[in-house]
Amino acid sequence: MIRTAVVGATGYSGVELLRLLHSHPYVKVCKITSGSQEGRQMAGVFPHLTSINHQVLTSFSPQQLVGEVDLVFFATPSGVSTKYIPEIVDLGIKCIDLSGDFRLNYPADYLKWYKHTPPESKYLNRAVYGLTEIFAVDIKTADIVANPGCYPTASLLGIIPAVLAGLIEPGSIIIDGKSGVSGSGRGLSLNAHFSEVNENLKAYKIGVHQHIPEIEQILEKVTKKQSDITFTTHLIPLTRGMMCTIYARLNKQVSTEEVVKYYQEYYKDHAFVRVRPAGTLPAVKEVAGSNYCDIGLVADQRSGSLIIISVIDNLVKGAAGQALQNMNLIFGWDQTTGLTNIPMYP
Amino acid sequence: MIRTAVVGATGYSGVELLRLLHSHPYVKVCKITSGSQEGRQMAGVFPHLTSINHQVLTSFSPQQLVGEVDLVFFATPSGVSTKYIPEIVDLGIKCIDLSGDFRLNYPADYLKWYKHTPPESKYLNRAVYGLTEIFAVDIKTADIVANPGCYPTASLLGIIPAVLAGLIEPGSIIIDGKSGVSGSGRGLSLNAHFSEVNENLKAYKIGVHQHIPEIEQILEKVTKKQSDITFTTHLIPLTRGMMCTIYARLNKQVSTEEVVKYYQEYYKDHAFVRVRPAGTLPAVKEVAGSNYCDIGLVADQRSGSLIIISVIDNLVKGAAGQALQNMNLIFGWDQTTGLTNIPMYP
Amino acid sequence: MIRTAVVGATGYSGVELLRLLHSHPYVKVCKITSGSQEGRQMAGVFPHLTSINHQVLTSFSPQQLVGEVDLVFFATPSGVSTKYIPEIVDLGIKCIDLSGDFRLNYPADYLKWYKHTPPESKYLNRAVYGLTEIFAVDIKTADIVANPGCYPTASLLGIIPAVLAGLIEPGSIIIDGKSGVSGSGRGLSLNAHFSEVNENLKAYKIGVHQHIPEIEQILEKVTKKQSDITFTTHLIPLTRGMMCTIYARLNKQVSTEEVVKYYQEYYKDHAFVRVRPAGTLPAVKEVAGSNYCDIGLVADQRSGSLIIISVIDNLVKGAAGQALQNMNLIFGWDQTTGLTNIPMYP
Amino acid sequence: MIRTAVVGATGYSGVELLRLLHSHPYVKVCKITSGSQEGRQMAGVFPHLTSINHQVLTSFSPQQLVGEVDLVFFATPSGVSTKYIPEIVDLGIKCIDLSGDFRLNYPADYLKWYKHTPPESKYLNRAVYGLTEIFAVDIKTADIVANPGCYPTASLLGIIPAVLAGLIEPGSIIIDGKSGVSGSGRGLSLNAHFSEVNENLKAYKIGVHQHIPEIEQILEKVTKKQSDITFTTHLIPLTRGMMCTIYARLNKQVSTEEVVKYYQEYYKDHAFVRVRPAGTLPAVKEVAGSNYCDIGLVADQRSGSLIIISVIDNLVKGAAGQALQNMNLIFGWDQTTGLTNIPMYP
Repeated sequence: MIRTAVVGATGYSGVELLRLLHSHPYVKVCKITSGSQEGRQMAGVFPHLTSINHQVLTSFSPQQLVGEVDLVFFATPSGVSTKYIPEIVDLGIKCIDLSGDFRLNYPADYLKWYKHTPPESKYLNRAVYGLTEIFAVDIKTADIVANPGCYPTASLLGIIPAVLAGLIEPGSIIIDGKSGVSGSGRGLSLNAHFSEVNENLKAYKIGVHQHIPEIEQILEKVTKKQSDITFTTHLIPLTRGMMCTIYARLNKQVSTEEVVKYYQEYYKDHAFVRVRPAGTLPAVKEVAGSNYCDIGLVADQRSGSLIIISVIDNLVKGAAGQALQNMNLIFGWDQTTGLTNIPMYP
Repeated sequence: MIRTAVVGATGYSGVELLRLLHSHPYVKVCKITSGSQEGRQMAGVFPHLTSINHQVLTSFSPQQLVGEVDLVFFATPSGVSTKYIPEIVDLGIKCIDLSGDFRLNYPADYLKWYKHTPPESKYLNRAVYGLTEIFAVDIKTADIVANPGCYPTASLLGIIPAVLAGLIEPGSIIIDGKSGVSGSGRGLSLNAHFSEVNENLKAYKIGVHQHIPEIEQILEKVTKKQSDITFTTHLIPLTRGMMCTIYARLNKQVSTEEVVKYYQEYYKDHAFVRVRPAGTLPAVKEVAGSNYCDIGLVADQRSGSLIIISVIDNLVKGAAGQALQNMNLIFGWDQTTGLTNIPMYP
Repeated sequence: MIRTAVVGATGYSGVELLRLLHSHPYVKVCKITSGSQEGRQMAGVFPHLTSINHQVLTSFSPQQLVGEVDLVFFATPSGVSTKYIPEIVDLGIKCIDLSGDFRLNYPADYLKWYKHTPPESKYLNRAVYGLTEIFAVDIKTADIVANPGCYPTASLLGIIPAVLAGLIEPGSIIIDGKSGVSGSGRGLSLNAHFSEVNENLKAYKIGVHQHIPEIEQILEKVTKKQSDITFTTHLIPLTRGMMCTIYARLNKQVSTEEVVKYYQEYYKDHAFVRVRPAGTLPAVKEVAGSNYCDIGLVADQRSGSLIIISVIDNLVKGAAGQALQNMNLIFGWDQTTGLTNIPMYP
Repeated sequence: MIRTAVVGATGYSGVELLRLLHSHPYVKVCKITSGSQEGRQMAGVFPHLTSINHQVLTSFSPQQLVGEVDLVFFATPSGVSTKYIPEIVDLGIKCIDLSGDFRLNYPADYLKWYKHTPPESKYLNRAVYGLTEIFAVDIKTADIVANPGCYPTASLLGIIPAVLAGLIEPGSIIIDGKSGVSGSGRGLSLNAHFSEVNENLKAYKIGVHQHIPEIEQILEKVTKKQSDITFTTHLIPLTRGMMCTIYARLNKQVSTEEVVKYYQEYYKDHAFVRVRPAGTLPAVKEVAGSNYCDIGLVADQRSGSLIIISVIDNLVKGAAGQALQNMNLIFGWDQTTGLTNIPMYP
């Protein structure tokens, strides 16, 4: 049994971590912390945990973790883990950060996209980008894992096989992102106020979303060339679920069947990516509550474009689930440990 | 490992049985049948099962079960299990029926409320009503279990402690039922057509719902006197979840705290009933995807009435989950086996 | 043309007043005020008003109204109109108050249910309760109209004919209220946060809701005897719409057809109350965006109770629409003026 | 007063026509027909029309229209108006067709995209495409108006100004369409079954949607050159509302402010197109129930693309509302007659 702490346990990613860790056979959650709810019973803040979770939320200090905890999950707002992770990893404790603080390589990008100071370069350089299907080898030995954002996870798993195969023109990639409201967290805002969101549909942060540099950085790492993507995000009136509809110019005449076959081959050893048969497309409810990323493909001969539909549960594969998958890699367990539940349908 | 069959696997209760049985350690699903989808891959009908379920849907015949199956779940429309269960139990195979066919004791009630012929009395009499928290002793030795309806489960778990304690006047019970749309199944109808249900709220079947005799029969069994309840049902624009708001005249001056204390005592050995602290009330999302029934209580001195709020996931505690709980009782396993997942929140 | 001001124009009731007043032939909105958004363009705060409303939100002071305005609508939070209405009516300007500040007759009730000081009795006594179908005569000559709450409107229109006819026992009345989320306003709170409300269903304020004394006071005024009601409220995951399911013991053997016939007769001269044929029940979407209150009735012989289903759009008949209807009465116009739009379906 | 008939009055477009025509000052609806509900009271089929609409649904025959009706609206499924419109216009009665039967110019396209035989060419050629903001001049004298599809309306109003100004490369246009469920009509199907659509998000008909040739044909008419668009459609869990997110390569360096200024100039005489200020984006709820098309623009320098967000209510500007606007043009009334209601928000 390894011992973990969840920092920021009262946000949606934090409470989702507790849901998933509950059914993990090798993990004990020893410590849950909250800046806002310190001293309260977790089950008092989240009554769905009545009779399941008897822990009290504490404040957070790195020193308390020594000898108590082997791994810390940060499910905190932007800027928090920057403060703490360096000290914690220097204490020999591993960290998986669900925030964006360690995802970007270039300090300048943090000021431009996140508007805050990045961690010291030596810690940025130690951080491994935790896109499990692509960077498993590096993750196994990491002590800081930057858990990917939800949009980047859905987008990159959809795009990478095509760019690696030279099927599409990297410079032509357009990502139309669609997210459920839980992605914006539990903090109150008019953008998450029921009567404003329900029966509504809105685009937001066009061209300025902090996931843009994250996606471009990984595409460049994979393709070895710069690629400026077009990226938009839309708020959909549902709680959980995310879809990225991806468009790119085809470099060669290829049929949908051929593309599907290639993707199925590419992901054949990856339990959590399900490439759908030609002629079918995935829907977000088909991955609800699970760690799957389902991908559908259409090679549109008429317009000469490849259309990729990639869906995830933003709180699972897009956050807490992939964090567990990263933990499984670090500790040498099967990647699916604790993540084998069936999507909840309907 | 025991071997089971799911008859009617392509309805919502059937597919929910597969979701829950998947994480049960002692059960193998050997056979899934469908009247409408025979011959198709289950994962073709329900793509969320891609790479998880590789079974093909077959037609159903009792004889095929001999030597193959130890237990059959019927997740079939009203009238189907009446035809098959007698033959199957005579073959020595146990049956858990999620339909209403074996719930009522008096043949006449089937014609009045279900408009179809009941099973032979000797089989009706063999059937045990599978309200697990109340009839566990009888269930353990049953070979036909009539799995309770969703409204009766939520209502009876909320009412029974109060009537047994003589807190309320049985003749005064009013149940205002509120159900998510999945309760009406996967069959197409204008009442489940998205644009008719979404942003809408409607009452239905007032005074004629088939769950009325089911609830009254059990109340009479428990209280030893006849009680005519007032029962209404409402369709709520959500997929999963059910709430029963129950009203009854108080027989004695009692505080909310006293009632809560008594209920907590009554259910202290029942893992799936969570009685909420005085001053708090349960919400349906707090049991989503789980087998919990959460109960909140208010003794309203002003009006001299007890108000009971009882919530369940209609597809779990109201159908497939309670069916597993009944199976656990029959086979002598811990009642919570395979049902320990945390509710999915949000 | 009469000249009006809307105080609190940026709440949901305020913006709904602007929507309805826009199509009223005899009214000009001269002034819109907001405590929080002073100085902003209304269309900047509510972009759906782009190119329609070119007004700027101002701060509020009674003196500015003199000679400028004939009628003031207060769509303000509890406690605000108490401060201003006395001064304004003394200036000879009529007021319609959508808040609860002038609805109750007894000062003590404000401290108990609203937790704030009531207006002076002489102003309380001048206020007329604006339930248009019942108190039209008094409203015509009022200078302060206390516009009814949403739950009281739906409940009282459903109950009053039955109690007047002696059909039901007033002491036995139970109201199960169900409301869309817009009823809780535009102010941010976890109870209106999308991911907490969507796919959820919760009861709230049982036995302590401020609409209880409002309903009881009017029932007592109508029946001349005290009646303690049982009243619960539930939050439903939809934006607009309210249903009250009302239960009461029948005093006499009567058929649903007879009750329907009596109600249809009772409301035959009231354009906005539609009593549905026996055997049918109204749904909230059938009144969406309109000023209708639709009523369905079931005399349940089995249980000896009368069940009344009453639905309204909480923002129209439950707030802004009834306020216009009150204005129409005060100025001697046809009650339906500006309110003849068809419900928006689907 | 002109006299109209609505053929197919019990579909969502038909019932929306009745809602809008109800508040039109110069129109009388003399006849409503239905293939499936003949002989029933309209208010029986749609109870929200209780006490408003007292008409009986009849069967349809062109001969009955002679001398009775000046204009016929077809709100019928694909293939129906093809049969009747030729005969009706030859009788001197004008027709506005909300179906796709007369939208395409080339007979071959009907077989390819609609899988049914087109009308005779001479009637196809008489039909005018009723995109009111673009083809008003031709519409004024038309006797057959092909009312545009919902996706083409939102897309073309968003694209046309940019292509006319040479701002974008027509060959690079990608349209990501997102529609509420009412767009799929009132016919029952698993794709509109509440529990399948709610909390879900799915793409459909990629590359094969019948609106593709409709959009391309108009773009070619306007730009005088062929342009193959990439077009995808997504089903969003809301009832009303549609958004098209449009992507195209910029031909020149321009700022968002410049593009907005140009669009505002282009549409300055068109009451129903509202171009939003730079830095803001429209949401579908902001046009709900109204005939507006709201457009937001972003010139994304990073990626060199223009992003256009265009929103409409699919049942109003995307169907019944634009049909009234076409009628207003034909009869020489102000285009906004009967269409001046404010969007319903929230």
